[in-house]
Amino acid sequence: MLDSIKRLVVGRPLRSDRLGEQALSKRIALPIFASDPLSSVAYATQEILLVLTLGGLAYLFLAPWIGLAVVALLAVVVISYRQVVRAYPSGGGSYEVASRNLGQSAGLVVAAALLVDYVMTVAVSVAAGVDNIISAFPGLNPHRVAINLGFVVVLAAMNLRGVRESGRTFAVPTYLFVVGVLAMITVGLGELVLGTPPVAESAGWAVSPEAGHVGLTGLALALLALRAFSSGCTALTGVEAISNVVPAFRPPRAENAARTMTAMGLLSIVMFAGITALALVAHVRYTADTCDLVGFPGNCETDAQRTVIAQLAAAVFGGTDSFMFFFIQAATALILILAANTAFNGFPLLSSILAEHRFLPRQLHNRGDRLAYSNGIVLLALVAGGLIYVYAGSVTRLIQLYILGVFTAFTLAQAGMVRHWNRLLSTETDRAVRRRHHRSRIINAVGAVFTGLVLAVVLATKFTQGAYLVVIAVPVLFALMRGIRRYYDRVARELAPDPAGMVLPARIHAVVLVSRLHKPALRALAYAQATRPDTLTALTVGITPDEVRTLQVEWNRLAVPVRLTIVDSPYRDIAGPVLDYLSELQHEHPGDLVVVYIPEYVAGHWWENLLHNQSALRLKTRLLFRRQVMVTNVPWQLESAHSDRDRPLTPVGG
Amino acid sequence: MLDSIKRLVVGRPLRSDRLGEQALSKRIALPIFASDPLSSVAYATQEILLVLTLGGLAYLFLAPWIGLAVVALLAVVVISYRQVVRAYPSGGGSYEVASRNLGQSAGLVVAAALLVDYVMTVAVSVAAGVDNIISAFPGLNPHRVAINLGFVVVLAAMNLRGVRESGRTFAVPTYLFVVGVLAMITVGLGELVLGTPPVAESAGWAVSPEAGHVGLTGLALALLALRAFSSGCTALTGVEAISNVVPAFRPPRAENAARTMTAMGLLSIVMFAGITALALVAHVRYTADTCDLVGFPGNCETDAQRTVIAQLAAAVFGGTDSFMFFFIQAATALILILAANTAFNGFPLLSSILAEHRFLPRQLHNRGDRLAYSNGIVLLALVAGGLIYVYAGSVTRLIQLYILGVFTAFTLAQAGMVRHWNRLLSTETDRAVRRRHHRSRIINAVGAVFTGLVLAVVLATKFTQGAYLVVIAVPVLFALMRGIRRYYDRVARELAPDPAGMVLPARIHAVVLVSRLHKPALRALAYAQATRPDTLTALTVGITPDEVRTLQVEWNRLAVPVRLTIVDSPYRDIAGPVLDYLSELQHEHPGDLVVVYIPEYVAGHWWENLLHNQSALRLKTRLLFRRQVMVTNVPWQLESAHSDRDRPLTPVGG
Repeated sequence: MLDSIKRLVVGRPLRSDRLGEQALSKRIALPIFASDPLSSVAYATQEILLVLTLGGLAYLFLAPWIGLAVVALLAVVVISYRQVVRAYPSGGGSYEVASRNLGQSAGLVVAAALLVDYVMTVAVSVAAGVDNIISAFPGLNPHRVAINLGFVVVLAAMNLRGVRESGRTFAVPTYLFVVGVLAMITVGLGELVLGTPPVAESAGWAVSPEAGHVGLTGLALALLALRAFSSGCTALTGVEAISNVVPAFRPPRAENAARTMTAMGLLSIVMFAGITALALVAHVRYTADTCDLVGFPGNCETDAQRTVIAQLAAAVFGGTDSFMFFFIQAATALILILAANTAFNGFPLLSSILAEHRFLPRQLHNRGDRLAYSNGIVLLALVAGGLIYVYAGSVTRLIQLYILGVFTAFTLAQAGMVRHWNRLLSTETDRAVRRRHHRSRIINAVGAVFTGLVLAVVLATKFTQGAYLVVIAVPVLFALMRGIRRYYDRVARELAPDPAGMVLPARIHAVVLVSRLHKPALRALAYAQATRPDTLTALTVGITPDEVRTLQVEWNRLAVPVRLTIVDSPYRDIAGPVLDYLSELQHEHPGDLVVVYIPEYVAGHWWENLLHNQSALRLKTRLLFRRQVMVTNVPWQLESAHSDRDRPLTPVGG
Repeated sequence: MLDSIKRLVVGRPLRSDRLGEQALSKRIALPIFASDPLSSVAYATQEILLVLTLGGLAYLFLAPWIGLAVVALLAVVVISYRQVVRAYPSGGGSYEVASRNLGQSAGLVVAAALLVDYVMTVAVSVAAGVDNIISAFPGLNPHRVAINLGFVVVLAAMNLRGVRESGRTFAVPTYLFVVGVLAMITVGLGELVLGTPPVAESAGWAVSPEAGHVGLTGLALALLALRAFSSGCTALTGVEAISNVVPAFRPPRAENAARTMTAMGLLSIVMFAGITALALVAHVRYTADTCDLVGFPGNCETDAQRTVIAQLAAAVFGGTDSFMFFFIQAATALILILAANTAFNGFPLLSSILAEHRFLPRQLHNRGDRLAYSNGIVLLALVAGGLIYVYAGSVTRLIQLYILGVFTAFTLAQAGMVRHWNRLLSTETDRAVRRRHHRSRIINAVGAVFTGLVLAVVLATKFTQGAYLVVIAVPVLFALMRGIRRYYDRVARELAPDPAGMVLPARIHAVVLVSRLHKPALRALAYAQATRPDTLTALTVGITPDEVRTLQVEWNRLAVPVRLTIVDSPYRDIAGPVLDYLSELQHEHPGDLVVVYIPEYVAGHWWENLLHNQSALRLKTRLLFRRQVMVTNVPWQLESAHSDRDRPLTPVGG
């Protein structure tokens, strides 16, 4: 049953040798891995406007300058990461760069930051996608959280089916989004040139006087600008995604990845700049609390504001019932939800690499039936779903946790790259190559300084708004991974084989547990006898005198050629007396091996097990903790178990 | 941890040989086993009034006659059951009488009816007890269900601690209740004689005209009387309890039990008759729907009517703030809740007898740490708690399911007793003894006829009000017990030992599963080698070529003297290829025995298991279904598991 549900969701298992086939062309890789950075333009402008509006509508004059700063930063980071992709094509991305150049600890910090970030990508992107769906269909607002969680489940299921199929499914919406947004920008700016600029539905709203602080100067103004800038930096989230998944590209992997990154960077810049410009032209208002807006038409407790992109689409294409409005909203919602897919590709891959390096449980390194890292996918879905649930699917609240991890990883990776070039320069002699390395070092140094500055800004301006949770989560994850590695190392040392190889035990004592003298007990005795142990004992635990007497009578009647030993159990416990008997045996014969034979019924139906005592199970668990003791199960298959129970579990289509 | 919680709730385990000490004196047995029949007087009168009021206040004139009929029936049943106790002192009670004299099927019907009844006893008594608590503290009404469930849990916990301690705890309230009710009756009737009869708070209320049907005659009147009579028969519930627990009495068991029964019967009759008389004197009104009462002071949706006994106590002792009102309410609530304890004694004992006869799972026959039948206690608490939850703790709704089972058991047991005396009479020749037997037969025949008639009346008048659920449940339980018996019989036949005794397998093939060449694997190989099998194979499942290569290199380096066999697993599955290999091996060597050795880690902390693959577990489960295959676990205790993990599980105080 469970198995067929799994088959339905996941599909037929794939052979390991089909792994190579899963590599992606640039045309498919761009929509898959760039859906995150491309889609973040859907909320970056909105977050800038939101912060500036907190200061007062007058401060919207800062928006173009903040937009420019974000675009510049985006260009720096994309150029820096092109170098990462080329220098480290194995897919470790920022993690690998930091580990190799700055040491294991820096690498782990990056890894922890990235893991947190992947989770946030899923949460924020899905939440923003649902926000855009609700912009088109406001009646869905009460079901926000359920819709969010539904999408997380669907994404997890699609990814469990394997990368390539996801790729095809996810390519179309990304392209639709890019085309739609570029069309909107072109038409909107065209209208401006023609003298009929688009006007947003919120253009007339005024922030109520209480909410606006006018007359900020100096430090306060700078702080407002910096906060708006930190929020705008959400446009950079996911830029590094491609550097983490280089092995998923078709060869030449590094070159293809670098080109895809350039394309992604250019598209991001054009779209972000265009949307920001259009938002200023159309006088879009966006504020955290809709109740502060004079003229806002709805009930501020239940109605949601339309997203900035929704307001623009409506303004440019003539209202919220035009075809293009729905087209843009559909494409935006789709790309945002599919942006979460970037994380569903990146998180399992990164955690599998960390598991391979023994920083995370090794199960995260197992490929599932469809060659995807299933455990990582399920883990990501659970954590992201939990965050969405706790934050009730609010983009504005979730986004506070987001950018910190991104910039931690950016900064450390770029710093690592500077070290990388330093190392190469220290051995390189060819002048032309040295010149190239020098230039690369400058690029990464600029990247490191800028992203480091942004990191400081983000930390300072977002700390109290929720980012402190990330400041806690990253060190905790770091310590956890360190602990796991230490555990695995300790176990590996403990299990390292002796040069002596196999050491045979001196003698073997077989102990067969008997409760009644039925066929399973006789079979266990026969099997134990057949292994020719040095001593063979049949052991029974006497609970009531009647049972013991019946057993002895039967024993004599069948003339069983093994001595029956009876241990009393005044407390009606099975395991205790058996363990006591074994302790004594082991004490008398130190160094010898004891084999405990346990006859067991196997019933065909689970409910039949309700009709048999389960005391054997408890005993077996406790015997596992005994040294020099082996436990042998001698199963007796009841007639109902004779059908071939293992057939449905065998992989289909093998 | 779990273990210490269990110790706290249940107490230290008791030795089996302390079983005899748990026997009860009459003074303790009366309150324990008679709390059910004695407490049912607390609601029997109320249920009679409720039905008559449905017809209209005019029909209350029927109440004395119905009360008399119930008293007569009570006397007949008590006298009949005294014979059962004497004739069958082993504690099977009605079940044993019916099985021995009317055959297995009749016995099982009785058993099913009694099991259902015990569940209802818990549900109805606890619900009625809580009703009386709420009569004293109406503010607790919204928490009715939670309070009910809390009491069920407490009762289960007390019974898990063992019979004798429960006895001491439960003796006092029963006596307080008896003294309190007798005092109330005496004072109330005294007031009547002195010319100042008590007047209930509800005496002035009038049933609203819509609800009253006046002018019933003939059949309709008879039907009303019969319905009221069926409801009044709740006074008889639990009368048979003592016959089911004779072995819990001190010797001479049968005689002591019979005397306790007489005392119980006399007390019940006096109290029931007294309360009914007092209720008529004080003009108590009680109706199913308080909204039908003109003059009822509360809000009929949230406020609960006071119980009849609460109204009487208030009327007799001068209001709801007198000490005696609270005393009577406390004693009533306590005895009702402790009446449920009768079922907590009876149900586990009956189900243990049924389990011994293989009609129920054998776990119900195991005595727990405190010599109580723990599994039966837990099962009863779960089912009764479920019923209370479903019926929201409403006594009037629960009581409809109650009396049917009681009278089924009564009728079949008395009919069985008639057969019993017939059998004895057929061989007896002594005239004096024959006369005694004749007289006994008449008593039981009268009992059978009367209870049979009541059964018919109850079935006819309560069927549509919920009793149909019992009409379904009893046959289902009957069929289930039949099925369980058939299953055990089939297994017993299947497992009966061959006269040939032990048959040694021809040859033994040892297969050691190896994933990496670490100490546990080497130990498993050494142990397998030490059992001197006919063939020894080291088997590994190749998932990635790298892993296989590493293993082979290590194998050669350590010069392991066993051949390494590699099976490929294109779908990355462990169990499938191993099972296929074994199939082939078994096909080549039919009749031989295969022993599969599985090296296993044992971690000391549960969370450490998260860091190890659990694929061995899945494989072991599937190997259990293979015939002629033994599975041997070779555990390797990691250092964290070296502390003596089994010590806390060993019984304390041994």
